[in-house]
Amino acid sequence: MTPEEFRQAGYAVVDWIADYWATLPQRPVTSQDPPGAVAAELPSGPPTQGEPVEAILTDLGKLVAPGLTHWQHPGFFGYFPANTSGPSVLGDLVSAGLGVQGMLWATGPACTELETVMLDWLAEALDLPARFRSTGRGGGVIQDSASSATLVATLVALHRAAGGRWREVGVDRRYRVYTSTEAHSSIEKAARIAGLGTDGVRLIEVDPATRAMSPTALRAAIEADRAAGVVPALVVATVGTTSTTAVDPLPQIGPVCAEYGVFLHVDAAYAGAAAVCPELRFGHAGLEYADSYCFDPHKWLLTGFDCDAFWVADAGELVEALTVLPEYLRNAATESGAVVDYRDWQVPLGRRFRALKLWFVLRWYGIEGLREHIRRGVALAARFADRVRADDRFELVAPHPYALVCFRLRGPDGPNEELLARVNATGRVFLTHTRVAGRHTLRLAVGSPQSTETHVDEAWAIISEAAADAIPA
Amino acid sequence: MTPEEFRQAGYAVVDWIADYWATLPQRPVTSQDPPGAVAAELPSGPPTQGEPVEAILTDLGKLVAPGLTHWQHPGFFGYFPANTSGPSVLGDLVSAGLGVQGMLWATGPACTELETVMLDWLAEALDLPARFRSTGRGGGVIQDSASSATLVATLVALHRAAGGRWREVGVDRRYRVYTSTEAHSSIEKAARIAGLGTDGVRLIEVDPATRAMSPTALRAAIEADRAAGVVPALVVATVGTTSTTAVDPLPQIGPVCAEYGVFLHVDAAYAGAAAVCPELRFGHAGLEYADSYCFDPHKWLLTGFDCDAFWVADAGELVEALTVLPEYLRNAATESGAVVDYRDWQVPLGRRFRALKLWFVLRWYGIEGLREHIRRGVALAARFADRVRADDRFELVAPHPYALVCFRLRGPDGPNEELLARVNATGRVFLTHTRVAGRHTLRLAVGSPQSTETHVDEAWAIISEAAADAIPA
Repeated sequence: MTPEEFRQAGYAVVDWIADYWATLPQRPVTSQDPPGAVAAELPSGPPTQGEPVEAILTDLGKLVAPGLTHWQHPGFFGYFPANTSGPSVLGDLVSAGLGVQGMLWATGPACTELETVMLDWLAEALDLPARFRSTGRGGGVIQDSASSATLVATLVALHRAAGGRWREVGVDRRYRVYTSTEAHSSIEKAARIAGLGTDGVRLIEVDPATRAMSPTALRAAIEADRAAGVVPALVVATVGTTSTTAVDPLPQIGPVCAEYGVFLHVDAAYAGAAAVCPELRFGHAGLEYADSYCFDPHKWLLTGFDCDAFWVADAGELVEALTVLPEYLRNAATESGAVVDYRDWQVPLGRRFRALKLWFVLRWYGIEGLREHIRRGVALAARFADRVRADDRFELVAPHPYALVCFRLRGPDGPNEELLARVNATGRVFLTHTRVAGRHTLRLAVGSPQSTETHVDEAWAIISEAAADAIPA
Repeated sequence: MTPEEFRQAGYAVVDWIADYWATLPQRPVTSQDPPGAVAAELPSGPPTQGEPVEAILTDLGKLVAPGLTHWQHPGFFGYFPANTSGPSVLGDLVSAGLGVQGMLWATGPACTELETVMLDWLAEALDLPARFRSTGRGGGVIQDSASSATLVATLVALHRAAGGRWREVGVDRRYRVYTSTEAHSSIEKAARIAGLGTDGVRLIEVDPATRAMSPTALRAAIEADRAAGVVPALVVATVGTTSTTAVDPLPQIGPVCAEYGVFLHVDAAYAGAAAVCPELRFGHAGLEYADSYCFDPHKWLLTGFDCDAFWVADAGELVEALTVLPEYLRNAATESGAVVDYRDWQVPLGRRFRALKLWFVLRWYGIEGLREHIRRGVALAARFADRVRADDRFELVAPHPYALVCFRLRGPDGPNEELLARVNATGRVFLTHTRVAGRHTLRLAVGSPQSTETHVDEAWAIISEAAADAIPA
């Protein structure tokens, strides 16, 4: 495809996306087709001869788009948001066009340096502790997801626990990872990948009201394990848990980790973005105790997946744990020690130029624009929570410090399951569920920049009406 | 940013990329600026108020582009290619615009199903063994890179070696991974991440002439380890090693793995793409022994990074090793068992809609178009190798079955290092190096669809002239 062919086809694809966004509100949020429906419409093998872009775009509209869950839909309130934005898409488009492989500084100096600067910009935007800035021993890097950030933190923690011998001798199964019963499944998955197994994870109980990790229980578990010859290697605290956005108390957890020399990773995948607003930084109190920290601009900061921002306080320790330097990657810049090679900060070797989308987003919105976006989400969630609170049939299940509301019909689980199914079957809105203290709970997470009071009110109207049918007479 | 604002800004970015591609040949392949030059030009913090797209594009052209290594440049012959193409960029653009999170089938049915079908299309295009098709117990998935594919293969192998208990109890340090001394560094990194440590990797010697793994040495190592109470868990064979594109002999390695019940992963990251051409499938002989296999469409198949295609013969075993199912991800489709949830096939939870770029590439080029691309690369490499062969000052260091030529000035390393530095300093071409049997060796890897006979001949002219200066009088 020549540059001129690309130009013409590129305009057509840009038009396709602009039209898709403009018509999103008219689409059902989710497909109602059964498994296999899309695959059945596709040829069983690739074409021998090439086809024009128009043919592909036709099928895109006809076969693919109707078979999607529309994450950018204003009625999408499921999971956590994974919103993108125009400037993010443009930054990603530039990245795709440049096709730069940023594994080493030398393979894309501007790719590496823009990333370092963007992570410093983000650290400033969130007012993160100074230890995470690249101007000192720390620094930030883009990971694909918080799962990978947690895995990397786990590996560094194991290396530290083994006195720097982990990378040669491997993992000792006496090491343990501590996190709350409400923590994300990626922590168990990271422990498993790192060779500790599910048995290597200690789930610490939470405060029944706040769903936040009990520092007392954490201390007790660490002390009991130490007494039994087990080695506490890592604590993962969560700022904004997946179920209910609970905030683990870092001011109490941090000192426990410091006392016992345990690596502390803070997972603020969803809620970290809120800290662009000074009044929403409460979750970061005590963050100066953390050895590493991450949040996902791809969740609530208008940056398309994948973009997890991960910081460490000691970059040297991270690189020591992960670096492998074969001859074919050696180069003068690396040998000089004057550059960052981000391949040593992550699992894969290769890397895209993801800093571009952050650069586009931060510049196009500015900090004030991002604050406005976050505040709007929080206000919409509060508006929805007010509706729930005012309706005696419902109860709020947990605090809603950010933009997620957890609620349920009072009483047994059955009607709640029924309610969720009925609400999602309308195709107008999409919610997901969780269990809080064993009870089936609905989650409404606001995040789309397209979601307005109208959409939240419509969601409530649908829920309220469906509840009438879901509750047994 | 409204859809209409995006439409206008999108045209401008498409123009920027088309112009960038059209003017690539006029740019130096690499930046000559020292570390820190780009960062020094950027503001130290993010803007408070938003800025227009035009301002960002101006800085993109002024600050970022000149600070890059231009991987799409027709004179880029370094590492392995990581070429993109117009249709790939368009597919990625659609993916960014849709902003679909494909972690579960339910969160993007078409995202999952198109991926399954595209991996089947690729399997057909490469004529992979039937065991890897989704129609049986196997199937394919997109990983970000071959590094991650190797890691996943390592984890499944460990789970199998532990009789299905790995995911609970963790890794046993008596397990060993076997690969050749010429294998990629990602195999050591995967073993380290999985908790085996560098000590858990046995590097098997290679045939001095072909640089391919010795099956005799592999058998001897496995037998010796077994006798010593060590458990051989995984063999990673390479089709197209990074240094020289050596092909490990699967027809001999496979039976050794089968005999001792060792998981066999085949890493064809670079060379796998060649198998779209029937006459270049020699490296896949014996692939029916493999438990898993991967290659990178993002290297030599005109698909932008990241896109590693990874297949397993037993998808159930893979999912068993990696799945974690928290309540907030439960859904009716998953419970039905009728769908694939690709989150269980990889390290991270989240996933982009990367099948779109494969769909765009496979349809726009067609199989014949892709064959033409591969054959042109092989022919250009052969053309360059002929030049080397005809010049008595030089020697070819290894066979060149694909599109990589390894060569050097006869004699000591010094002049070769000098030669590489002089060649790259011209800014017209970019090559990298390796060591083959300890000797400094230059690598010229053809891959860009923009590279023609003119560029290869120019590369040779530059090298030939620089050699005159690099050889001591």
